[in-house]
Order: sequence, then C-alpha cells, then structure tokens
Amino acid sequence: MRIAIDAMGGDNAPQAIVEGTLDAARAYSDVTLILVGDEAQIKKYVGANPPPNIEFVHTTEVIEAEDEPVKAVRRKKDSSMVVAARMVKAGQADGMVSAGNTGALMTAGLLLVGRIKGIERPALASIWPTMTGGSMLTLDVGANMDAEANHLYQYALMANAYAQIVLEREKPRIGLLNIGAEPGKGDKLRKEAYPLLEAGPFHFVGNIEARETLNGKCDVLVADGFTGNNMLKLIEGFGLGIFGELKKVFLKNALTKLAAAVLKPGLAAFKNKFDYAEYGGAPLLGIDGAVIKAHGSSNARAFRMAIHQARAFLKGDVLGKIRTDLSGEGEETS
Amino acid sequence: MRIAIDAMGGDNAPQAIVEGTLDAARAYSDVTLILVGDEAQIKKYVGANPPPNIEFVHTTEVIEAEDEPVKAVRRKKDSSMVVAARMVKAGQADGMVSAGNTGALMTAGLLLVGRIKGIERPALASIWPTMTGGSMLTLDVGANMDAEANHLYQYALMANAYAQIVLEREKPRIGLLNIGAEPGKGDKLRKEAYPLLEAGPFHFVGNIEARETLNGKCDVLVADGFTGNNMLKLIEGFGLGIFGELKKVFLKNALTKLAAAVLKPGLAAFKNKFDYAEYGGAPLLGIDGAVIKAHGSSNARAFRMAIHQARAFLKGDVLGKIRTDLSGEGEETS
Repeated sequence: MRIAIDAMGGDNAPQAIVEGTLDAARAYSDVTLILVGDEAQIKKYVGANPPPNIEFVHTTEVIEAEDEPVKAVRRKKDSSMVVAARMVKAGQADGMVSAGNTGALMTAGLLLVGRIKGIERPALASIWPTMTGGSMLTLDVGANMDAEANHLYQYALMANAYAQIVLEREKPRIGLLNIGAEPGKGDKLRKEAYPLLEAGPFHFVGNIEARETLNGKCDVLVADGFTGNNMLKLIEGFGLGIFGELKKVFLKNALTKLAAAVLKPGLAAFKNKFDYAEYGGAPLLGIDGAVIKAHGSSNARAFRMAIHQARAFLKGDVLGKIRTDLSGEGEETS
Repeated sequence: MRIAIDAMGGDNAPQAIVEGTLDAARAYSDVTLILVGDEAQIKKYVGANPPPNIEFVHTTEVIEAEDEPVKAVRRKKDSSMVVAARMVKAGQADGMVSAGNTGALMTAGLLLVGRIKGIERPALASIWPTMTGGSMLTLDVGANMDAEANHLYQYALMANAYAQIVLEREKPRIGLLNIGAEPGKGDKLRKEAYPLLEAGPFHFVGNIEARETLNGKCDVLVADGFTGNNMLKLIEGFGLGIFGELKKVFLKNALTKLAAAVLKPGLAAFKNKFDYAEYGGAPLLGIDGAVIKAHGSSNARAFRMAIHQARAFLKGDVLGKIRTDLSGEGEETS
C-alpha cells in the first residue's frame, strides 16, 4: 500500500507534515509513505535514519493557501500537490494526503485523479465532533455547489461505506439535513432526495434538523455543498467567538484568573472534544483513490491521524464497497 | 395606529402576552392594542383598570405549536391568529404581533393578509446578536424554501428599509451569505444574485462567509430560506450545547461551584448578549401590514419589545419605503 504525502501543504509544512509522516511510517510497516516536495527542506526534518518505508519525490513548486484553485492546479505542474495527484492517477500511489489548499485539492482530485465510474459529483466529507462525545461525518462541505437529488443519494452511499470501514460504525445512521423532522419538509432538493435516500442500501434515519446535528442523532449527515460549507464555517466561527468571549471573562482580574485556573481541567476536556487533531482529515469521496484533506493547521499528530485514515480507507477497500453498492449488488442494510 | 395581538400564541400565553401588551399600552399612548383571544382567560390577567388604549376581540380557537400550518390556518377560522390576520386585511388593524406557530403565522400572513404589490416572496427576518455586542438582521430564515435571485434582491431591499427605520441604522450594510468573500463565489443562486444586489438602491458590502456572520460585518445578511433556517437552528443548538457543557464543568464539585460563582457576573453579561428578549421579534417582510413574530418562549418583556417593533414599523412607514424603493424611485444610498 503506497500513499503520497503532499509535504509542502498546510500552515506548518513541511516540518509538521514530515514529523507526522515519520510517526505514521514507524507505526504502520505495511504502508509505504512517499514524501513529495522540496527534498532539501524535507530532509532537514527527516533525520539521519528514516524508516525504510519512506520514499522521496522531489518537486520545485508549492500551491499556496491563497492561490486560485483551478489556475494553481493547471499552472503549477511541478507542485507537490499536483505531482502527488498524478502519482495516484498513474498507480504509483494508491492514495494521497494533503493539508494544503482545499479548493486546489478538490480540483486536483477531480481533474487529475478522476471520479469513480458512476459517481456524478465528488463530495468533501468533514468529521464533526458531537456534544455527546462522538463524531459525525458531514458531507458535502463544499466540493459541489449545485447539488441535485441523485448527488445527495450518492453522497449517502459513499459516506455509508466510509463510516462502516474507516469510522468502524457497524450500521451507520444516515440523516438528511433539513428544516423539519417530518418527511415532506424542505425545499425542492430535499423533497426529491428523501425518497431516494429511503430506498438506498443503507440505514436512512430521516431528516435531521440543524439544532440536532451536534447531538449525536446520526453518523452521517447529508447536505448540499453550499449549506454544508456554511454550517461548517458557522461552527468554526461560533466556537472561536464563544471561546474568545470566555477568555475575556476569565482574564478580567486576579480573582477571575484564579477561578479560571480551578475550572481549567474541566474546560480543557470540553475543548478537547472539539480538537480536530483527534478526528483527522476530510476524505474527498467519489475520487478514484484515497484522497484525504488534513486540516490546514495540522500539527504532526493531526497529520498522522489523516494518514491513519488513508490507510484504513485502502485496507478496508472503501472504493470497492462504493462500486459494489453503486452497482446495486450491495447488501441491503436498512 | 392599531395593532392586533394574538393573545393565545406562544409557550407562556396568554399571561405573558397580556402582561407585555399592558406594559406596551401604558408606554405608548399613540397605539391601540387589540387583545384577540379567549376573553375569559385574557381578563384574568388584565386587572380591574386596563389602560384606555386596550381593546378586546373574543375568539374560541387556538392554533397550537404542533398544528400543521396550512391546515390550521384554513380550518381554525375562529382562532386568535387567523382573526388577527383578518383584522389586518380588513384594515381594522395596521399590524399584528404573535408568539404562536411560526409556520401558521407565515401562512396567515401570505394567504390572509397578502403580499405587498410587486413582492414575489415574503421573508422572515430574524435579529441575531453579534459577538461585537451589536445585532444583525438575517433573512430569509424559512418563509420561502426555493429562493431565486430576484427574491434575494427583494429581501435585501425590504430589510434595508426595516433596518433603517426600525433598527435605526443610517446606512445598513447589506451582505450576501456565501462560501467565499470574493465576487463570483458560490452556487448558481448566489452568482446570479450578486450583480442584482450590487445594482440595488442600498449599501451592498459583498459576500459574507458564515464564520464572519457573528462578527458584526454587516447589518443585514441575505440568505435563502433553507440555508437561513439551518443557520438559525444551528446557532440555537450549538449555543444550548455549549452552555450545557459549561454548566457541567461548573457544577462538578464544591470548588468548581465556587469558581463559577466568581465568574458569574461576567458570564451573565455574555449570556445577556444572546438574550432574545433584548432583540424582540422577527418581522415577516413582504406582507402588506406590520406582521411581527415574537419568540415562542417570549416572556412579557420580549413580547413588549415585539410590540415596540411593530409600532416603529408603522410609525416609520416601512411599507411605504419598500414600495418606493421597489418602484425605483428610492434614493441611491450605496
């Protein structure tokens, strides 16, 4: 099993990427990890004795966070991300992990690696922690802006495979993000998607309202990319805002600082629930390879977790299950 | 100026509704408030000497929170909400305030009161507190599920009038909820709406990302009803979830309880920012009358605030400004 690593993508690249990759290489002897990027920079962090299952591919360009995705993928042909994607396409790697520009990775996945036959639109699936201490896979969070009912159906089918195999949920509960719990609610898209989801080879649990999304009522939440992206960003912004306000309350004076110190262990445990590093990266489902987007601000631990996901994706043959379920030969689980 | 009050709608009806209405009647001698509902129940809370600007209309039915909106409005012809809406249509009242079933109020507004001529779809506009201590009007939060670009344009135009007159913002900054800040981002709907908004007789400030929505970057946030409704419910759910988790941390043991007591004043001030009672109700814009939805769990203070909004709506002639701006005679303010 071979996984290409975009060593130059992300806020902490290449150091955190290389460190996370070395950790993963030591932990998983069944995987070969290929560090793709500026070799001189990468080797600074590799040390004298890299694990035997590490390889290197030198590249000269980097796609930056600010780059316009389609242009960057087309023009920066020797960038670490583009070269990694081409390796997946050519069969030199089975998958890739990148903490770089999300839009560029979606573009590279779609244009360079290509879709699974029969899948109309890939979807980016993001793992959200729930208040109940678990997690939920939400898709699409922004790969496809104008979703149709059949796209939502395929998202559910792909996420079901991923949740079973990578997240180890025996019978993932698939929910449809909607404005009301009853069937028949919602806009035209949701009304059309509901019966398709009901008939799918997975365990559909119906509509889930946004206020319930963090309460652990489903394992997979199906949304169109516009709504999913807005929800994801709202959670990020709201979380940051609330923790920022709390900090102000805590730092007000000597007494509040003392009180905050007493509460610190409890608050830290709560904040940890929302630590992306625990949950790893976002799979780009529908691409004909294991393409995992690690968080842009990944540290070594978060990046290693994303590699762990790519490995589980490949070991469990998520692509094979998606193909089988798509062809209608999948087992009825609902 | 006459405002019909749905005395039977909301979790705390009729007591909180009647009390808030009496407070408002005492504060605003220029308004006549008409309590519509079960007279025997209402009079229990009115007292021996109601203000002279209170009137009563007896009704026998109530639309419940669980009722299916369209059915309820069609069948419960002698319900407090339906009768209040008919009074607006007949010119016996200039506006109405209800804390009852939101879907039923939108239906009653649309079917019984009717739209402003030229407005294609009414929109429910909700006032959201921002982290910066201000507030922002977001619309549509669920009146119209399948919005088109011209609907979004009309939402902006109506909200601009409301924000100027009722929220007293001199030059409201109108933002479009979108997945990226740059023009040209988003789905088909957003791409079509952007140039319309740019050309509108209001101060359009471009796309606003969801993570920025609570940072006070605009006075009006324009969204389609599906996305707006999901965002509103996510904020509610996330806020409840976080305050619930904090409570657990605070109540862990005697020491954490003591620490929490020290932090209480600061936390209370923070929580007050998110107190809906401070912000009042949601106007149903596009209806040919001042129709204000008070929060379902309104206490007397929140309901009084919603009446205050209906009065400001009528005093400032929001409907007149919407008509003028629609006809293209409005002043260019952008």
